[in-house]
Amino acid sequence: MSDQDVVTEEREDEDDAYALDQKTVAAILEAVENGDAAELTRLMEPLHAADIADLLEQIDSSDRRALITLYGKEFDGEILSELDESIREDVISALSPQVLSDAVREMESDDVVDLLEDLEKPQQDAILEVLEAADRLAVERALSFPEYSAGRLMQREVVMAPEHWTVGEAIDYMRNKDDLPDQFYHLILVDPRLRPTGYVALGKLMAARRDTKLTDLLETSFRTFDVDEEEGDVAYAFNQYHLISAPVVDDDGRLVGVITIDDAMIVLDEEHEEDILRLAGVGDESLSDSTLTIVRQRFPWLAINLGTAILASAVIAQFESTLAAVVALAVLMPIVASMGGNAATQTMTVAVRALATRDLTRSNALRVIRRELVAGFLNGCVFAVLMGAIGMVWFGTPMLGIVLGAAMIINLVVAGLAGVLVPLTLEKVGVDPALASGAFVTTVTDVVGFFAFLGLAAFLLI
Amino acid sequence: MSDQDVVTEEREDEDDAYALDQKTVAAILEAVENGDAAELTRLMEPLHAADIADLLEQIDSSDRRALITLYGKEFDGEILSELDESIREDVISALSPQVLSDAVREMESDDVVDLLEDLEKPQQDAILEVLEAADRLAVERALSFPEYSAGRLMQREVVMAPEHWTVGEAIDYMRNKDDLPDQFYHLILVDPRLRPTGYVALGKLMAARRDTKLTDLLETSFRTFDVDEEEGDVAYAFNQYHLISAPVVDDDGRLVGVITIDDAMIVLDEEHEEDILRLAGVGDESLSDSTLTIVRQRFPWLAINLGTAILASAVIAQFESTLAAVVALAVLMPIVASMGGNAATQTMTVAVRALATRDLTRSNALRVIRRELVAGFLNGCVFAVLMGAIGMVWFGTPMLGIVLGAAMIINLVVAGLAGVLVPLTLEKVGVDPALASGAFVTTVTDVVGFFAFLGLAAFLLI
Repeated sequence: MSDQDVVTEEREDEDDAYALDQKTVAAILEAVENGDAAELTRLMEPLHAADIADLLEQIDSSDRRALITLYGKEFDGEILSELDESIREDVISALSPQVLSDAVREMESDDVVDLLEDLEKPQQDAILEVLEAADRLAVERALSFPEYSAGRLMQREVVMAPEHWTVGEAIDYMRNKDDLPDQFYHLILVDPRLRPTGYVALGKLMAARRDTKLTDLLETSFRTFDVDEEEGDVAYAFNQYHLISAPVVDDDGRLVGVITIDDAMIVLDEEHEEDILRLAGVGDESLSDSTLTIVRQRFPWLAINLGTAILASAVIAQFESTLAAVVALAVLMPIVASMGGNAATQTMTVAVRALATRDLTRSNALRVIRRELVAGFLNGCVFAVLMGAIGMVWFGTPMLGIVLGAAMIINLVVAGLAGVLVPLTLEKVGVDPALASGAFVTTVTDVVGFFAFLGLAAFLLI
Repeated sequence: MSDQDVVTEEREDEDDAYALDQKTVAAILEAVENGDAAELTRLMEPLHAADIADLLEQIDSSDRRALITLYGKEFDGEILSELDESIREDVISALSPQVLSDAVREMESDDVVDLLEDLEKPQQDAILEVLEAADRLAVERALSFPEYSAGRLMQREVVMAPEHWTVGEAIDYMRNKDDLPDQFYHLILVDPRLRPTGYVALGKLMAARRDTKLTDLLETSFRTFDVDEEEGDVAYAFNQYHLISAPVVDDDGRLVGVITIDDAMIVLDEEHEEDILRLAGVGDESLSDSTLTIVRQRFPWLAINLGTAILASAVIAQFESTLAAVVALAVLMPIVASMGGNAATQTMTVAVRALATRDLTRSNALRVIRRELVAGFLNGCVFAVLMGAIGMVWFGTPMLGIVLGAAMIINLVVAGLAGVLVPLTLEKVGVDPALASGAFVTTVTDVVGFFAFLGLAAFLLI
């Protein structure tokens, strides 16, 4: 870490401008305790819906219910869309039917979809019921697309124009249309069969003369998504090609919606979060999950780890007589396994990320594997000399140092190899590398580490 | 993992639409080998600059240089801005001075800044020299802001209007302005001292009548950033408050630039990447780094890990006589340490992410710590029973099972505690929790794991 990094971190810590202010939270909780609705409304008024959602996530369940009851009909739909899934059901069940129906009615239809998809059926139905007929239809239509698809992500409100129009015609049309979406960035051109053929940025439209043809202002960045395209692929394309918005088309190529960069940003953020948590063997966990939820979520990974640890122990058990003869081996053996595990985690993380960003492909896989092998060998040699010396001095047995050093080299080379090959193989067979690589890789380095060290010791020391 | 997840992963794998096509890469490399410039240009023509950059990252260094030489003056500035830092210097040094200067001249000034900031001084100067005077000034001005600040991130081209204007005046002004930026989404209103007071979305401007006052169309999402604000905070605010663009102001509150969501998305992406890699003990590493670079980058973390592993060994060494008496202990002890390490990594990752997203604050820290303690205890109990039974059956000594179970509970509770407390403490003292938590946490669980297990064994078994 450079000096500059340290300075940046400190600045960030001091100037934590966007975290909810500690005093505000305390004052809000006090108002809730005193049942002072006027004071609560006054304190909450300047907060953005996203901050109110964060607040609800941070306080405990009984405070949350008390706050919601006291806040009453001030509670609006935007807060609902900002809430973490883990407490949505809890919050919704705390809202009075009237407040819930008001809140949902003022939400955009794509936000209602986002809210509904994680709810249980009875809550879903209750919310669908309060929607107006047209909105309900739109929401149900959206829910008919597969989860995590472009169809779920898109807004159905699009602004389109025939290809042959001029700038003036487009502006007049928009000025007279009274249901334009709140946010849109491109005017989408469509052919007579409603198939998008290009788009014009609003800024270009503004700057052009009224008699300019729309087709003269087309953006080169134009690309469309199929309605059933996976949302992760959509987010990747937005990031890779710097898209701001993009039309979504159905199987016949007809325009059915539009995806904007802010939605893509949220997906990208979620996918990253998922990768980080999966790499650590945690499921889709959040800070507002209950204790029992996290116990259940973490159990499977710990159970798998127990299995691999027992496997490693079984390897050690093969060398009981060796260990009984030279107890120093028991003292030193965790070092070899631990170094292997760490080196493998480094390689594996780089590989998993490179697969996610599509930087690791068949064109460079062999070169990456070779690089990791050599890197493992080089670092292995350095640490072999270091540990060999330490082992020798500590226990006064030169051969022990040699065994330790040799085992270190073997395990770091294996770590580099397993760190790339395991994620590559998982990706090939269609399992998320972020999810399963860790368990496999650690098993390999533990087993190889103990086996190499104790095996060499049995051969050379006894 | 639910069934649905599995299906999604598989779909993603089949439909890898955005990775560079394997055949295209092979054909391009063949054209390079044959020195067929026409064929190369034909193959590269349909590729987006971002894809060409990916291609250059994936092929090896000699192919890369051959390709660049053959591609000649087709090479454009956009490819340069898309390139990963790790190979930028290499690519730039392969470009002929004429091609480089043409490429740089056609870049936007903020892209030139982004390109320059990672280059060595001589290459920086060479590029600054080829810029036109006005551009050079703009770039030098931008470089005068601290690295990773809003000032570096912003575009200097802004579209602004006096507060008292109407929609018609604004549209006429924009139509007559011939240096509008390529992409902009808001018209920023400023007071007579050029301080931004609000903004109007272009879509709203389009839809309104010409005599509407701009102040009647203001967006509520308006917020400004200081020029020296940290880019991570800017990205966080864009994500939290769903911003599309935001004005940047200097110390006097005057408008100096604008940041758009696509730039914020890139920063968010980079910060995530950094967190993932740091959690795994890898620096700012990329797939195109050379072997020696990655050896050097990974060495420090491995060295730290060696230190902690030796510490753990020193703990084990205290129990040499115990181990000599009961060799089974050596077989079983890695299980306790490994389970602790895994449980701690789970908790730590959740805590580090929650700190990054500002979900873990003083308001809920105590509750989160309590939750982790209880979760550690509960999972500890389950695994204690499981492992106790296995230990007992395997080695036929009931007391060994009890020792193993008790050590497991102790270590999982400690893992939960350390997993939250270490990141919280690091954040408080201004060190990036993602960077340093792993080493501390693993040391704690290794030391406690071995000590609890061997200590209890020494006390109860001998």
